[in-house]
Amino acid sequence: MPDLLHIVYLVAITAEAMTGAMSAGRRQMDLFGVCFVATVTALGGGSVRDVLLGHYPLSWVAHPEYLWYTAAAALVTTLIARALRYLRLVFLMVDALGLVAFTLIGCDVALRLGHAPTIVVVAGVITGVCGGILRDIFCGDIPLVFRRELYASVSALVGVAYVALQASPLAHGAQVVICLIGGFLLRAAAIRFDWKVPRFVYHDDGGH
Amino acid sequence: MPDLLHIVYLVAITAEAMTGAMSAGRRQMDLFGVCFVATVTALGGGSVRDVLLGHYPLSWVAHPEYLWYTAAAALVTTLIARALRYLRLVFLMVDALGLVAFTLIGCDVALRLGHAPTIVVVAGVITGVCGGILRDIFCGDIPLVFRRELYASVSALVGVAYVALQASPLAHGAQVVICLIGGFLLRAAAIRFDWKVPRFVYHDDGGH
Amino acid sequence: MPDLLHIVYLVAITAEAMTGAMSAGRRQMDLFGVCFVATVTALGGGSVRDVLLGHYPLSWVAHPEYLWYTAAAALVTTLIARALRYLRLVFLMVDALGLVAFTLIGCDVALRLGHAPTIVVVAGVITGVCGGILRDIFCGDIPLVFRRELYASVSALVGVAYVALQASPLAHGAQVVICLIGGFLLRAAAIRFDWKVPRFVYHDDGGH
Repeated sequence: MPDLLHIVYLVAITAEAMTGAMSAGRRQMDLFGVCFVATVTALGGGSVRDVLLGHYPLSWVAHPEYLWYTAAAALVTTLIARALRYLRLVFLMVDALGLVAFTLIGCDVALRLGHAPTIVVVAGVITGVCGGILRDIFCGDIPLVFRRELYASVSALVGVAYVALQASPLAHGAQVVICLIGGFLLRAAAIRFDWKVPRFVYHDDGGH
Repeated sequence: MPDLLHIVYLVAITAEAMTGAMSAGRRQMDLFGVCFVATVTALGGGSVRDVLLGHYPLSWVAHPEYLWYTAAAALVTTLIARALRYLRLVFLMVDALGLVAFTLIGCDVALRLGHAPTIVVVAGVITGVCGGILRDIFCGDIPLVFRRELYASVSALVGVAYVALQASPLAHGAQVVICLIGGFLLRAAAIRFDWKVPRFVYHDDGGH
Repeated sequence: MPDLLHIVYLVAITAEAMTGAMSAGRRQMDLFGVCFVATVTALGGGSVRDVLLGHYPLSWVAHPEYLWYTAAAALVTTLIARALRYLRLVFLMVDALGLVAFTLIGCDVALRLGHAPTIVVVAGVITGVCGGILRDIFCGDIPLVFRRELYASVSALVGVAYVALQASPLAHGAQVVICLIGGFLLRAAAIRFDWKVPRFVYHDDGGH
């Protein structure tokens, strides 16, 4: 993992842990649950990816300090939650960077394992969105990532671009920076202009 | 996997993906969520089995084209959903075949790994029903497989019959055909005559 | 696993299976669902731990008889559910012992794999609480372990104490007995005096 991506990763797991802590707080969980949900939100996407690809050890098993970061971020969140409301925009921006960074890291893992391009993109998307999906399931919500502005789609597009860039003569660092900036701008534009993927609305007369 | 079973498998993951897409549509998910839930419904049972047995690579990692089939089936579903209501019976029949095919494939994986008969049957049932369970959890529903006519039970009975047939002199293909037909008829009869496993209804005065 | 811990383990998976069966009964699941939820409750924590650590085969794959115990415990529960209400205290006590035993077994697995102390404690907590979390998710509830008296915290404290005791000259059996008794008393006191971990209550003006 290049240094830039690693720094973005650490910022991103902190930010994701904070969104997890806030979700747990909405459900009035105790502090243990807050730390648990925060950690699952931050590290769950990469864990799902690694389990599905059989890629051991998982990142937090190899780097237990990540668990301390996310637990600390969760506890800090409970102290400064009131102030965080005024930082909503900062959060959205860090979350956008994190989504792209998680995606690229997931793609890198699958690339190193020699998987086909489809699997590389899927590994990126799983890393990007599964933490948030697990957060929502643990909190009893229907996963949000499938119902708001471009989110999983940004992850998929970043993954496709990154795979395509592998064939280019650009250095790895340049590929990462291009994807980080492009993905971030796409997500920011989606939030600003409320771009959404069309919904599929299906009603039936009960039954299945 | 014999050719017949493989063809049934491909038909079955397509049908399961379509039921997943319809569930996602009931929850008004966006098209990305529809493809995600469809894919998890179709391929989730086998993935859970493989992760629990440590059987890598997962089938869709080795065959990324399966992901394209299920995503395509999901998108087609969004276009023809209105028409699908008139095909409810066809769906139930394909789903029944799929349930049996998934079960046999799951049993085969565990047999090849040399597991005990109990684990072979359990691997079959997991393959048969876990996709639907994951679909329901992602859509915020209590899993349906535990509340409708014989379904998981058909999977278990097929698994037991298949394990028993291993001791017979019949060729593998004949064993598969017997189980496919027998399991299909059992499931069809359960739907037709509304056979259900008894429920356990428990009330307490709150608390746990 | 020393003999004492193994006996406590067998008692504990039986008791956990019974709590799972009762949860399934509250949701009026059929008998198949009751056995499924019971088994996941009893064996799910260890399975999550083993999958995350890449520790194969899972305990119930190596010992399929565990599946029969939990299914039998579930079916017995449906027969004697009415009587179980008068045994609520017995249940809480067995559940407390089970929580501690699961934690110690989880720590032992991670210790044998040579993991860092943080991972050892986390492996213990996952083993202790994830079965109950899965039970609640399958039954459509928000996980209870994060909302009641000290529970996950007891597991964590037991794990920390057990790791600390590894540095002591005490025999393994003595370490286990100390943790079992201490953890049990702590949990019993938490129930008796209604000790809870503080909650984090967060409200926002909708959105995320």
